[in-house]
Amino acid sequence: GFARLDVDRARRTGDPEVVFGQGKTPEQIVGALTTLHASHPERAILATRLDGEARDAIRLALPDADVDDVSRTAVLGPLPTPSGRVLVVAAGTSDAPVAAEAMITARVHGTSAERVDDVGVAGLHRLLAVRDRLDDADALIVVAGMEGALPSVVGGLTGVPLVAVPTSIGYGTGAGGLAALLAMLNSCAPGIAVVNVDNGYGAGVHAARIARRARPRDAV
Amino acid sequence: GFARLDVDRARRTGDPEVVFGQGKTPEQIVGALTTLHASHPERAILATRLDGEARDAIRLALPDADVDDVSRTAVLGPLPTPSGRVLVVAAGTSDAPVAAEAMITARVHGTSAERVDDVGVAGLHRLLAVRDRLDDADALIVVAGMEGALPSVVGGLTGVPLVAVPTSIGYGTGAGGLAALLAMLNSCAPGIAVVNVDNGYGAGVHAARIARRARPRDAV
Amino acid sequence: GFARLDVDRARRTGDPEVVFGQGKTPEQIVGALTTLHASHPERAILATRLDGEARDAIRLALPDADVDDVSRTAVLGPLPTPSGRVLVVAAGTSDAPVAAEAMITARVHGTSAERVDDVGVAGLHRLLAVRDRLDDADALIVVAGMEGALPSVVGGLTGVPLVAVPTSIGYGTGAGGLAALLAMLNSCAPGIAVVNVDNGYGAGVHAARIARRARPRDAV
Amino acid sequence: GFARLDVDRARRTGDPEVVFGQGKTPEQIVGALTTLHASHPERAILATRLDGEARDAIRLALPDADVDDVSRTAVLGPLPTPSGRVLVVAAGTSDAPVAAEAMITARVHGTSAERVDDVGVAGLHRLLAVRDRLDDADALIVVAGMEGALPSVVGGLTGVPLVAVPTSIGYGTGAGGLAALLAMLNSCAPGIAVVNVDNGYGAGVHAARIARRARPRDAV
Amino acid sequence: GFARLDVDRARRTGDPEVVFGQGKTPEQIVGALTTLHASHPERAILATRLDGEARDAIRLALPDADVDDVSRTAVLGPLPTPSGRVLVVAAGTSDAPVAAEAMITARVHGTSAERVDDVGVAGLHRLLAVRDRLDDADALIVVAGMEGALPSVVGGLTGVPLVAVPTSIGYGTGAGGLAALLAMLNSCAPGIAVVNVDNGYGAGVHAARIARRARPRDAV
Amino acid sequence: GFARLDVDRARRTGDPEVVFGQGKTPEQIVGALTTLHASHPERAILATRLDGEARDAIRLALPDADVDDVSRTAVLGPLPTPSGRVLVVAAGTSDAPVAAEAMITARVHGTSAERVDDVGVAGLHRLLAVRDRLDDADALIVVAGMEGALPSVVGGLTGVPLVAVPTSIGYGTGAGGLAALLAMLNSCAPGIAVVNVDNGYGAGVHAARIARRARPRDAV
Amino acid sequence: GFARLDVDRARRTGDPEVVFGQGKTPEQIVGALTTLHASHPERAILATRLDGEARDAIRLALPDADVDDVSRTAVLGPLPTPSGRVLVVAAGTSDAPVAAEAMITARVHGTSAERVDDVGVAGLHRLLAVRDRLDDADALIVVAGMEGALPSVVGGLTGVPLVAVPTSIGYGTGAGGLAALLAMLNSCAPGIAVVNVDNGYGAGVHAARIARRARPRDAV
Amino acid sequence: GFARLDVDRARRTGDPEVVFGQGKTPEQIVGALTTLHASHPERAILATRLDGEARDAIRLALPDADVDDVSRTAVLGPLPTPSGRVLVVAAGTSDAPVAAEAMITARVHGTSAERVDDVGVAGLHRLLAVRDRLDDADALIVVAGMEGALPSVVGGLTGVPLVAVPTSIGYGTGAGGLAALLAMLNSCAPGIAVVNVDNGYGAGVHAARIARRARPRDAV
Ligand SMILES: Nc1ncnc2c1ncn2[C@@H]1O[C@H](COP(=O)(O)O)[C@@H](O)[C@H]1O
Ligand SMILES: Nc1ncnc2c1ncn2[C@@H]1O[C@H](COP(=O)(O)O)[C@@H](O)[C@H]1O
Ligand SMILES: Nc1ncnc2c1ncn2[C@@H]1O[C@H](COP(=O)(O)O)[C@@H](O)[C@H]1O
Ligand SMILES: Nc1ncnc2c1ncn2[C@@H]1O[C@H](COP(=O)(O)O)[C@@H](O)[C@H]1O
Ligand SMILES: [Mg+2]
Ligand SMILES: [Mg+2]
Ligand SMILES: [Mg+2]
Ligand SMILES: [Mg+2]
Ligand SMILES: [Mg+2]
Ligand SMILES: [Mg+2]
Ligand SMILES: [Mg+2]
Ligand SMILES: [Mg+2]
Repeated sequence: GFARLDVDRARRTGDPEVVFGQGKTPEQIVGALTTLHASHPERAILATRLDGEARDAIRLALPDADVDDVSRTAVLGPLPTPSGRVLVVAAGTSDAPVAAEAMITARVHGTSAERVDDVGVAGLHRLLAVRDRLDDADALIVVAGMEGALPSVVGGLTGVPLVAVPTSIGYGTGAGGLAALLAMLNSCAPGIAVVNVDNGYGAGVHAARIARRARPRDAV
Repeated sequence: GFARLDVDRARRTGDPEVVFGQGKTPEQIVGALTTLHASHPERAILATRLDGEARDAIRLALPDADVDDVSRTAVLGPLPTPSGRVLVVAAGTSDAPVAAEAMITARVHGTSAERVDDVGVAGLHRLLAVRDRLDDADALIVVAGMEGALPSVVGGLTGVPLVAVPTSIGYGTGAGGLAALLAMLNSCAPGIAVVNVDNGYGAGVHAARIARRARPRDAV
Repeated sequence: GFARLDVDRARRTGDPEVVFGQGKTPEQIVGALTTLHASHPERAILATRLDGEARDAIRLALPDADVDDVSRTAVLGPLPTPSGRVLVVAAGTSDAPVAAEAMITARVHGTSAERVDDVGVAGLHRLLAVRDRLDDADALIVVAGMEGALPSVVGGLTGVPLVAVPTSIGYGTGAGGLAALLAMLNSCAPGIAVVNVDNGYGAGVHAARIARRARPRDAV
Repeated sequence: GFARLDVDRARRTGDPEVVFGQGKTPEQIVGALTTLHASHPERAILATRLDGEARDAIRLALPDADVDDVSRTAVLGPLPTPSGRVLVVAAGTSDAPVAAEAMITARVHGTSAERVDDVGVAGLHRLLAVRDRLDDADALIVVAGMEGALPSVVGGLTGVPLVAVPTSIGYGTGAGGLAALLAMLNSCAPGIAVVNVDNGYGAGVHAARIARRARPRDAV
Repeated sequence: GFARLDVDRARRTGDPEVVFGQGKTPEQIVGALTTLHASHPERAILATRLDGEARDAIRLALPDADVDDVSRTAVLGPLPTPSGRVLVVAAGTSDAPVAAEAMITARVHGTSAERVDDVGVAGLHRLLAVRDRLDDADALIVVAGMEGALPSVVGGLTGVPLVAVPTSIGYGTGAGGLAALLAMLNSCAPGIAVVNVDNGYGAGVHAARIARRARPRDAV
Repeated sequence: GFARLDVDRARRTGDPEVVFGQGKTPEQIVGALTTLHASHPERAILATRLDGEARDAIRLALPDADVDDVSRTAVLGPLPTPSGRVLVVAAGTSDAPVAAEAMITARVHGTSAERVDDVGVAGLHRLLAVRDRLDDADALIVVAGMEGALPSVVGGLTGVPLVAVPTSIGYGTGAGGLAALLAMLNSCAPGIAVVNVDNGYGAGVHAARIARRARPRDAV
Repeated sequence: GFARLDVDRARRTGDPEVVFGQGKTPEQIVGALTTLHASHPERAILATRLDGEARDAIRLALPDADVDDVSRTAVLGPLPTPSGRVLVVAAGTSDAPVAAEAMITARVHGTSAERVDDVGVAGLHRLLAVRDRLDDADALIVVAGMEGALPSVVGGLTGVPLVAVPTSIGYGTGAGGLAALLAMLNSCAPGIAVVNVDNGYGAGVHAARIARRARPRDAV
Repeated sequence: GFARLDVDRARRTGDPEVVFGQGKTPEQIVGALTTLHASHPERAILATRLDGEARDAIRLALPDADVDDVSRTAVLGPLPTPSGRVLVVAAGTSDAPVAAEAMITARVHGTSAERVDDVGVAGLHRLLAVRDRLDDADALIVVAGMEGALPSVVGGLTGVPLVAVPTSIGYGTGAGGLAALLAMLNSCAPGIAVVNVDNGYGAGVHAARIARRARPRDAV
């Protein structure tokens, strides 16, 4: 038989059901999406970490699903009405898959989500040019690989709650994301919280939970 | 001369000035508190990671400061009016210093803060007994050493934004907090964000920023 | 020539012969099974860590062998009469191969073995629903990847001897199973013993040795 | 106030209450022992990882307690009637404190406990001389530092359930016990389960739970 | 007898003799300074990593030596005429000892040396305010602990040769300087070279060798 | 859309634009080269870490580009007039790709570059035979894998600024380049600065910045 | 051009030339063997770490070479007259490639070499059965993966010089050979020296140098 | 009671008894020396890793013992007639304690032992000046901290059996001796065998076993 699906999560936490695709067969994933959608047709179901085969299988079996190749996700069922604003800030082009996963996750978890890319710290003028948008968000997700310095700089520019995502982009001692993770955990900018390497999903959930409960900004 | 104090942080981020006491002489700490207090007498200044000598020096030189031996902090100047509620949940007795640092930090950063202690996962009934209080908070700080399992269990019970703090409590492979840190980064409960080992300060700032912008709970 | 097979183990330890398939050619594995079976036709021989090619070769050469694709094992010869009860408790779907290896190993080593799946700590109600079965076992094997928190929670609910198996399920800092291993070694639940990452075999042997010598439960 | 004591453990697991002394003040330890003893005067309470100051405070405040300097433990209240036999096997003189902690823990958890010392693998004749005693036990605890090879050799000589304890005895790459821990986790002897470095307590609980439920040996 | 002093270094490399004080007795250090000074009275000799006792012994035995408590160095003999300009840029107050060691080393190795402090990346305006001075140097030494982000930001603002020094300032996963070291090795700013944690000396030598051979800046 | 290209770097740092090919599609790389070349046709653009597919795509789409299979780089646009001399010294045959990346990078960044190969420390006479060429350079790049000892020996023979590049050549504990990296960071030869494992690019930039500002050698 | 071949090694060290095949193309390897053989036709040349392609190329181009698939080596030219005896002792079947590389290396370096396999410590009787052969050797090479305990046991049985080779055989925390390496470095048996993981070559050279200079055993 | 002393080692291995002083009380050490000396008054007993207190206790209780403060050893009983020559080569002054432990150990184990100091690779001329003495030895012990490069250079100059000892001399990433250990394990010089960090004892035993069985050099 299948996994003991946790169909009750929404009641406990207000969050949608999510299928973690890694290490599952395409059949298991399609099956889980089908079952969860059947029990909650009025809610969006998210599937993450889908390889090419899994995405193909979903496109075939569940034509209504919204399948995305960059974020490697699929969404089945209607998106919730958004409340609050999440801004995803990414250091480099190669961080795009993680940033995209964070965005779609935040959106499925009930908030709106926008993105700013290629604002790595080695060319500071790029970040300073978008500085105003940082303060307009209810929650920030900052994605960076290599030395992972971007959250420190962003965190020094604004007091908006910020969650940092290290990516595995890098080579030599940077391969695997340890350098970026350590940098973010040891940031001298205050209040930065961190998720696992490449965990755009976790950052999206954290930020959405903040944003969807935030006071409207003119009320702050 | 002294450090180039970052006296402008409040305007940029809404946060108070904070002095990081580790690696500074008592004189440097008293000097920094004095200077910062002089430029912002209407705000609270926080000092963290104060050893015994530093706390004695502050008590002597700045009798108005509120010095605490458990959290190893000092506060100088009036506390802000609190907005929102932070709940600090700690696994064991030995996690108290970190939990206390998180609480005082959250309070100085503009929110109210309460605490629940000794609800480690090896005796689940203790946590289940306080379950209602979890959902009443605007942000949760979960502090645990050893295997760091508490955030996973709390995170499965509620959808309130949760930041986890690993502590260095443990021995053998647990000494230094790596086991707890890795557990929290790899939690199967969604949306958990993590700070550095023993960084109650960072968790307090992150949670306060969330709570003080949260919609009043009856409005959620 | 072949390996110097340790055909004498049963006399010394009461355990069956076991062939470790990893790093051996299909021919070497079939040869070892054949030789061991010839010298002890009345006992079950177990082979573990068999890749697809090895399983195919065994199915072809030894049609009487019981080959299993999930646990990646083969058993040749009659199973022993079971004595005592082992319960295998697994956190997630992806932990199934390791849980299955533990079960078949325990069974071949002389005890009965049952399984409970998908009771990860982020949805506690699932574990609490099967709580009674924990106390009915003579030995527990608890299998978990990611943050490896399940043994701590199970270990707090029962006094049955418990051996924990970390799995390599995870990504980022969780890839390879280090996070789960450290969590289990540092559990605040008392008396938890641990085997190597993905070592369902070792846990199965340990639990079987306990269960097959246990006093019948009504006698406890 | 104090820690939320887990006074209910005996009912759930059959185990006594235990106070973990590390990181607690002498006052906290004496207080916990006093409270726990008051609620269960008919049971033994164990305290572990007591430094010199804590042991002095217990000797003064609780003269009935049995305080031991080698294992750094204290026991308050009557020991249970033993059932089953645990044998503690230690590689070297320097492993004595960990071996002693394992023994007293096993005894307090309801089983009898004996010890064999100085049987390290570099002088094999010493172990072979006591070989018979291995098979007579219901559970074995094998304690070793340095390269941690002893459990592999013992585990190849007997089928009695065996839990291994790495110690932090060593220097250079051996300091801290990692070499011994890895050796034990990767033992080619089947069925060896491992606890944290220097965790004599955990091994004692695990072995006692096995031994006290074991069928009397003539019945095996 | 003494160490085989490398009295010939100046001829081979143009650099002065240097005594590495760590792990030497005060007598050994005073002896080495005396011998080296006797054979090259016209050159400066540098001693580094001097603890309090060593500094006291030098002050007593060699009153002409210039002993500094912050950098923990001593200089004996006349300083060389400086050629070229090194600028030392430090992130925080606690990085001062390493920054000071880099400065004195650069000066003894034949170049002038200046310093800018407290320009950590969490308050970017502080660095931007001194931006002009970066381009005026012939070589930059950038010193930072915690997440070690400063070299990435400085390296993006200027094309002056830059050597980065991670410091051991930090706690939790930041203790020991690994986070800062990895950040600097993985910087996305091009051309950053790195020395060992806390190795202000090595950075000073590297920068001095660059600066003292640099074309005068108006000639660039 | 594409990455936010940092087209302004030359003005800020005097360096050319560089495209980091790893983790980019051939189309993204060709696109970036085309765009950058269009905005600065008078300057060389460098692309690094190009796999076979990317090199093929560039050869097809940009026939004017200079594509090299050993260094895995491409150059588009006219090379700058060289100023100063960089010498690349490599320990073994297998270090050639990294040494070649360093050479072409140095050349594109405005200096001349030569190479000496196969002068590993286990056959010292080979290095001693080319000793004169070391002192003739304005900057040295020393490339070595395995135990990474070459920079220590070269650094003891000359005072020319030296940047060391560890390579990932090795096996067992040497795989990945950690042994070489640590050796270089801990060199007892003074003034050695280090870049990430296999980062020939970073060493090339660092050395070129030194060499192109160096005083002509007869003027030293 | 080719690598700067170290054709002079024999004069300096008495050892033959050796080609390290890893990371070289088949052409480079065949070329190196041809050149070295041409300059020393009277001596054996050894090539190690040859993958399938390289071995095929050698078989084709140099039919006189002795190519071996288990040890992945080739020998070209006449073997030297052996002096002294090396015994290679291996723990398990999977350690065969490393043991074979050690044997052929020792033989090429001027000594005779024999082998004993499958004497892992979990079945001690196997080793005790061959105990006499240990004392008959002039040098011992002990090869083991997993927990690497075999050298400790052998080293306690004999005073013959012993070099230990950890292999990468294992999984989970044993993958890569770290557990075996640490065990061997921390052996409580005196005088054990260790080479890199899977470095049968290095052990072969070390043992051959000992054996070929050893006094004939009846003269000891 | 005491440790189970291994009084039989000499018969098995030809080596003297040795007491490992670390982690033993002065009384235990004096007791062990006394017992061992009583049973073998005609042989030397060695004690290593003696702290100041232990050395004082030995001087008082056993005035005939030869106690040395640099190597932190004591020898009781007559030294054996030496056979063969060991040469200890040390890189720096700070490596003296380890080099001294290696020397005295080799001497007690039946060979003569000499020393060359301060021949680190950053000043190559110092090593080249003593090159002849390398070839005159029957076994070499090479001791180095920091980057541990000395064995690679020595190993390239001679074919004498060589055992390398990494020391814990260093700081930053070099603290603890890991850099030196890895360098020695990954040496490109053939045949280098390695012992644990700071294990002069182990190197002394290994080298003595080689030297005392070596053919007299004129007979080689
Ligand atoms: N306990 C703490 N852990 C980490 N960062 C801290 C802590 N306390 C203060 N800080 C940060 O350190 C800054 C002050 O550093 P300093 O100027 O060195 O006193 C504050 O603004 C905080 O951002
Ligand atoms: N999955 C496994 N993990 C660890 N050890 C195993 C496993 N399967 C078998 N073994 C051990 O490997 C031994 C057989 O090794 P071999 O002779 O190489 O087949 C068995 O007796 C077991 O002790
Ligand atoms: N091989 C390399 N290693 C490290 N960084 C590089 C390398 N090649 C290019 N870069 C850096 O990466 C930047 C370009 O990144 P991107 O915009 O992602 O192509 C360049 O400006 C360089 O600073
Ligand atoms: N410095 C040392 N490092 C490692 N092992 C040692 C050292 N000194 C003695 N030993 C070993 O420890 C054994 C004695 O241990 P013990 O019985 O605890 O005194 C000796 O026989 C040696 O094998
Ligand atoms: Mg980045
Ligand atoms: Mg906990
Ligand atoms: Mg889990
Ligand atoms: Mg041991
Ligand atoms: Mg910093
Ligand atoms: Mg090299
Ligand atoms: Mg083995
Ligand atoms: Mg050295």
